[in-house]
Amino acid sequence: MSQDERAAVGLGVGLIGFGTIGTGVVRVLRKNASSIAARLGFPLRLVRIADLDTERDRGVDLGGVRFDADAEALIDDPAVDLVVELIGGIATARRLILRALERGKPVVTANKALLALHGKEIFDAGRAHGADVAFEASVGGGIPILRSLREGLAANRILSVRGIINGTTNYVLTEMEKSGEPFEVVLKRAQELGYAEADPAFDIDGVDAAHKITLLAAMAFGAELTAEEVPTEGIRAVTGTDIESAEELGYRIKLLGITKLHAEEAGERIEVRVHPTMIPSESLLAKVDGAMNAIAVHGDAVGPTLFYGAGAGELPTASAVIGDLMELAREVRRGSNSRVAPLSFLPESLLPKPIFPLGELFGRCYLRFSALDRGGVLALITGALGEHGVSIESVLQKGRGHPGESVPIVVLTHPVRESAVRRALEKIDASRALTAPTRLIRIEEDL
Amino acid sequence: MSQDERAAVGLGVGLIGFGTIGTGVVRVLRKNASSIAARLGFPLRLVRIADLDTERDRGVDLGGVRFDADAEALIDDPAVDLVVELIGGIATARRLILRALERGKPVVTANKALLALHGKEIFDAGRAHGADVAFEASVGGGIPILRSLREGLAANRILSVRGIINGTTNYVLTEMEKSGEPFEVVLKRAQELGYAEADPAFDIDGVDAAHKITLLAAMAFGAELTAEEVPTEGIRAVTGTDIESAEELGYRIKLLGITKLHAEEAGERIEVRVHPTMIPSESLLAKVDGAMNAIAVHGDAVGPTLFYGAGAGELPTASAVIGDLMELAREVRRGSNSRVAPLSFLPESLLPKPIFPLGELFGRCYLRFSALDRGGVLALITGALGEHGVSIESVLQKGRGHPGESVPIVVLTHPVRESAVRRALEKIDASRALTAPTRLIRIEEDL
Repeated sequence: MSQDERAAVGLGVGLIGFGTIGTGVVRVLRKNASSIAARLGFPLRLVRIADLDTERDRGVDLGGVRFDADAEALIDDPAVDLVVELIGGIATARRLILRALERGKPVVTANKALLALHGKEIFDAGRAHGADVAFEASVGGGIPILRSLREGLAANRILSVRGIINGTTNYVLTEMEKSGEPFEVVLKRAQELGYAEADPAFDIDGVDAAHKITLLAAMAFGAELTAEEVPTEGIRAVTGTDIESAEELGYRIKLLGITKLHAEEAGERIEVRVHPTMIPSESLLAKVDGAMNAIAVHGDAVGPTLFYGAGAGELPTASAVIGDLMELAREVRRGSNSRVAPLSFLPESLLPKPIFPLGELFGRCYLRFSALDRGGVLALITGALGEHGVSIESVLQKGRGHPGESVPIVVLTHPVRESAVRRALEKIDASRALTAPTRLIRIEEDL
Repeated sequence: MSQDERAAVGLGVGLIGFGTIGTGVVRVLRKNASSIAARLGFPLRLVRIADLDTERDRGVDLGGVRFDADAEALIDDPAVDLVVELIGGIATARRLILRALERGKPVVTANKALLALHGKEIFDAGRAHGADVAFEASVGGGIPILRSLREGLAANRILSVRGIINGTTNYVLTEMEKSGEPFEVVLKRAQELGYAEADPAFDIDGVDAAHKITLLAAMAFGAELTAEEVPTEGIRAVTGTDIESAEELGYRIKLLGITKLHAEEAGERIEVRVHPTMIPSESLLAKVDGAMNAIAVHGDAVGPTLFYGAGAGELPTASAVIGDLMELAREVRRGSNSRVAPLSFLPESLLPKPIFPLGELFGRCYLRFSALDRGGVLALITGALGEHGVSIESVLQKGRGHPGESVPIVVLTHPVRESAVRRALEKIDASRALTAPTRLIRIEEDL
């Protein structure tokens, strides 16, 4: 069969990785086969699946599908026009994706970790071999956020992307707020309910969000960076006091991935960070509860926008994977040699850009001091802040301990450069009146 | 020059209509010329503008642009590869768009009224001549909602699209809530501030939203319908009592455009309507204030999603227009003869589909009775509702008048079929104890 003849009967999809998301992909491809074919003008046929576990019954119809453990043979199979990689992990996934691209076969992947660490190598290979890599499912689950950055908002200079991009941490923070229970208790329940993994570090410590904000920075700014360069802080240190104080001050605490463009005379710098953030209670992003995700994008023409949806899960992720498959299938069908425009899923070639240092951040800060409840402590704190030019908007003294016990003192600063706050905290934390390092939570106002 | 040579120096854009949005398009094309060219791989060159008013200074640089009043000559100009129609209105816009399509030139338009009334003719002409029509700017301003329905969510069977798609009415309702002032007062202020037109009927009576929901129904369901078929009710009848009662009952009132798919054994029916709607206060959509827009899309795979942004304005609308231009430019550059997939901006051919009648709607209803404050009225109301199988969830008696005066009685029903409510209201409203027709506001719960 020629490419055109095969296209007439549909394009062949090979699926590597038949776990939860893979099963969702099979399910949706089957269920919506006719509307997918109607929208494309030809069917997408699932022809082959590779997974090491060939025994388990996934409860989906595999009629007409070849299923074995041989991912290499799947890639090389002439019946496979498009490859879906859903095994996760780094080394094997990298090898298989590169193999597919070298054979000119476009790849759909949800593998944010791989792309956030080895993205440039993979995109370069795709370009070299005229095969695209699509990865909408890697950020925000079913939310078409990458596509919106790449196409819908393509006329804009993107100024910032800020989002709740990890469902587990948002679930835990939401439950901590609702129940008033501490982090460990809520995390345990989240694990029992399946909202958090048995080993939750990847989510809870912000690593997953760092991977995703790396990809968002690449899409928004063409910034070549790896997740390891992203200053990352998870939610383990968020306490009930922080959550209560946030509420009193008119904020909610969310784990945000944040990236912004700083266009300066000397060139562009990219701000990128992941940490618990206080955002105004009345902002739309603050209303995003439970495991849902939402990404706020600010463009110079469009102004503020927000994209909301399920950030994970079998079917939402499958929605994104198949949306990508449909786009790549259209490209394959046009014939890659007619592809004159840069088709890469990245808006422009990735270029290394300097990272904006945290010390230069300018904004209000929430500070929680753990201080011995004795005279002079507040004077020490306010004095040291004042010395470093940090002016105070409000102070909350949370409860009173017995003399000599530690109590939290909460300070909200006026907008200030973070480096000044850090210098003041160094001095304050050196005092014996402080019983633990002071906690700083950054505040994002303009949401 | 051959097409390829011209493409190398960029594609030529002709702009018809140099008003607010047109000026925004020129501004953004100029400002972001280099990033647009980087993303496309070639520049978009604004070569010609047509507008009847050639005198007024729009404050934008027109160097290298031919500007006169001759729209036909612009369309026929071989330097113009892509046509942007921003004059609005029906007859002239229709004629110009058809002329461009007949010459094989793709068209970008923000003209929802035209598409909602003559969409099929225009899309058919585009298909016949191999030229696309893109209209992202016609719904939701800069929000890439049509593109998301068409591509990002293409794997889904769309189940519902519900949105705040008219900024003027959302502004007025938000201000009524905030200030407690009546509709007329708030509308007048909105007009003074430029949030409402001198003749506000088009927005206030829901006509604009009906146009937009018609296009959303076409995109989501391939439903061929015209705006005239959409049951439409504006916000003039919303009173302070309604807003207060909504709040007491846990709702907010928003003018929504709603369309849903009813897939039944006998075939598909399309629910489509525009009216003030009570939605749960805690829903994300309820938090969308002022002139902002937001559209909630529910897909069978992706689940609930929401897209938020500015629904109008010079630069947000320009963002959508230029996003479309970039996509069409890519298509032109590939060469239209390589276009084998249906490129139409509609997901499938439009087919007439039966409309789901309002009487079959099933849900809670808010009823505001205007009754004389005398014994037996409540018994009359509850009795008639009961007779028709309408059970009551709560009753709010709003204040007391002097005997013989009219007072509002508010009833929240349990979920019920609307036809039953209507029958009960016929009976109740026939009573001399009722001083005005009863007001029904529909409630959408699952948002």
